[in-house]
Amino acid sequence: MTKPLEQVLLTPGPTPIEPHAQKALSFPMRGHMDPEVFAVNARVQENLLTLYGANSSAFTCLLAGTGSLGMEAGFANLLEPSDHVLICANGSFGYRMAEMSERLGANVTVVKAPIGQAIQLEDVKAALEKQAFKLVAVVHGETSTGVLNPAVEIAKLAKSYGCLVTVDAVTTAGMMPYHMSDWGIDYSYTGSQKCLSAPPGVAPVAFSSAAIAAVEARKSKVPLWYADLEGLQAYWNRREYHHTVPVQLHYALDAALTAALAEGLEARAIRVHEVGAAALAALETIGFSAFVHRPEERLPTVLAVRLPDHVQDVPVRSGLRDHGVIVTGGLGETAGKIWRLGLMGESARPAIYHRFFDALEKVLGVKGLITAFDKHLAVRA
Amino acid sequence: MTKPLEQVLLTPGPTPIEPHAQKALSFPMRGHMDPEVFAVNARVQENLLTLYGANSSAFTCLLAGTGSLGMEAGFANLLEPSDHVLICANGSFGYRMAEMSERLGANVTVVKAPIGQAIQLEDVKAALEKQAFKLVAVVHGETSTGVLNPAVEIAKLAKSYGCLVTVDAVTTAGMMPYHMSDWGIDYSYTGSQKCLSAPPGVAPVAFSSAAIAAVEARKSKVPLWYADLEGLQAYWNRREYHHTVPVQLHYALDAALTAALAEGLEARAIRVHEVGAAALAALETIGFSAFVHRPEERLPTVLAVRLPDHVQDVPVRSGLRDHGVIVTGGLGETAGKIWRLGLMGESARPAIYHRFFDALEKVLGVKGLITAFDKHLAVRA
Repeated sequence: MTKPLEQVLLTPGPTPIEPHAQKALSFPMRGHMDPEVFAVNARVQENLLTLYGANSSAFTCLLAGTGSLGMEAGFANLLEPSDHVLICANGSFGYRMAEMSERLGANVTVVKAPIGQAIQLEDVKAALEKQAFKLVAVVHGETSTGVLNPAVEIAKLAKSYGCLVTVDAVTTAGMMPYHMSDWGIDYSYTGSQKCLSAPPGVAPVAFSSAAIAAVEARKSKVPLWYADLEGLQAYWNRREYHHTVPVQLHYALDAALTAALAEGLEARAIRVHEVGAAALAALETIGFSAFVHRPEERLPTVLAVRLPDHVQDVPVRSGLRDHGVIVTGGLGETAGKIWRLGLMGESARPAIYHRFFDALEKVLGVKGLITAFDKHLAVRA
Repeated sequence: MTKPLEQVLLTPGPTPIEPHAQKALSFPMRGHMDPEVFAVNARVQENLLTLYGANSSAFTCLLAGTGSLGMEAGFANLLEPSDHVLICANGSFGYRMAEMSERLGANVTVVKAPIGQAIQLEDVKAALEKQAFKLVAVVHGETSTGVLNPAVEIAKLAKSYGCLVTVDAVTTAGMMPYHMSDWGIDYSYTGSQKCLSAPPGVAPVAFSSAAIAAVEARKSKVPLWYADLEGLQAYWNRREYHHTVPVQLHYALDAALTAALAEGLEARAIRVHEVGAAALAALETIGFSAFVHRPEERLPTVLAVRLPDHVQDVPVRSGLRDHGVIVTGGLGETAGKIWRLGLMGESARPAIYHRFFDALEKVLGVKGLITAFDKHLAVRA
């Protein structure tokens, strides 16, 4: 195929590729058992401890798959058939967690919240009072709706009931404060193409020492050989062959992760807040509004905005696409009603939002969006 | 990290990257739901039918993982707990099939052959006579030993007993004749980094219509959500969201597959035979010998050679590595005794073997290997 034109991705994943990661993609091929690859892997493991705020007793690695494999690997390792698991669900990814756990034969209880609202702590507490759970799982930031769940509070609560805790960090770790060990989280995962802006295809994961002990104490083998913790440890810790790894994606993730830590996780959290607030302020000038009502429940990395009456979802996004700007609509019941603007990694850049607002001005025939965005950024800066 | 130096990979996977695939890796980022990506996907699906020799009722796609995920996806989709499966095992990958099936709760029977020898048809027949199996699985070419199994005959036999048939095509499809539909094979998979010389990280797979029907007739859901056939069909056939796909690896696989079909599958089969025979002939001049005794049991794509007494495994391979040439040793009981030279995709090139023999001449202090190789090639050409 001929080389496609550049696009500006404002989607809630994948994000625009980080420049060092792009460059690393074209490094020469290496075998998965090459000492140079193991050196890259070791640096990735060390840097993932920092990304997740995990102490050195945690095990980190990359799974050879996308974020959904990260989700599934957690349940496959931590749950045995008939184990009781409590899933917090208020969007597509929470319900996906429940689906995966059911397929693994677990006994699944779901705590729900309406679309666009965060999981309520008292609902989790009520469920924990009713019966004992081996594992409690929650999506930190629901990509499908732009809702931030109180994962920290849920983790602490679940811990006080003696449960293991899985937190989906797909839209948060690397772009927001994340302190896995302090918060009592036992398993976290993300996708390479989200907050780190590496190419999709690897899933950075972290198991706490309690999670490792729980896997070691299983009565049955992990049903998923491909992401079995013991096999992952064999390759990543003992440098034994398990399966071929996507070396180019290791190079690229390593480069993106190194760049993220060089920028600083706190600086990145500030960046996403500033760009996101300015983007919302600019959109509000033409009638868009935040989809998530409560400001404290808004996920900083995915700005979900309700469309004003004068903006038709599909035609306007199609017009933006003609200008090379890609925006994602709603899912399920929010389809046609909201847009979800990515603010993860390289998408949380003023230059990206300038391209978006420039195209939006042209498609809608309005003016002043870039000016409003810049003004808000300057006030906050 | 700084850009690593080029290496000559003679490993039995990964192979040197095909130049079009290398170029495609640096195409600009696209979302997994982009129309351009779906166009690439559709071409890949069509071309995979050709690669596997599958008729149009088969379903082909790329899994977002390496070849081992392709192996596991087949068992996860085709087997339900307690189903009877017959696994042919004469090396690491056959035993891996048994391990995965057991983890899924299947009732596993293994037909074995010694390391370095092919599975015997009469052993398979004896097992099939004893009881009914839902599925029979065999590795076409055992990467771990360089043995070619009689997969075609086993598939036909299993079919005559009414079984579904899985064949691991990791070292064969794309470099040797492969006619899935004619041979009665229901599920095949490979890794992108083997015969196609694309980057590792995606697994091209094919399900026959009978395999699709078997999955649809399941009583229980597929335990592995990530590679569930229904979810894969949703994304690949109906263009619905399932999970993020590794877009760069799709680009690269598409380019490598297109190049392979442009060269022609028959031409590639001739190329691997010619280069492999010349390489063995040259190695025989200094005392190496074919590890697999029976010529008809030798896998053309992985040349397994027994080391002569004067060649020390680790020091010589280490010396080759200093010259940028990577050769793989044996696994398990063959460790220290054999080398496995890759002849898949871009590794089956005279230029690659020139680099190998040049380095080997220097490390061993011998002469004439390149001459012997070229002479044999010229005779056959």
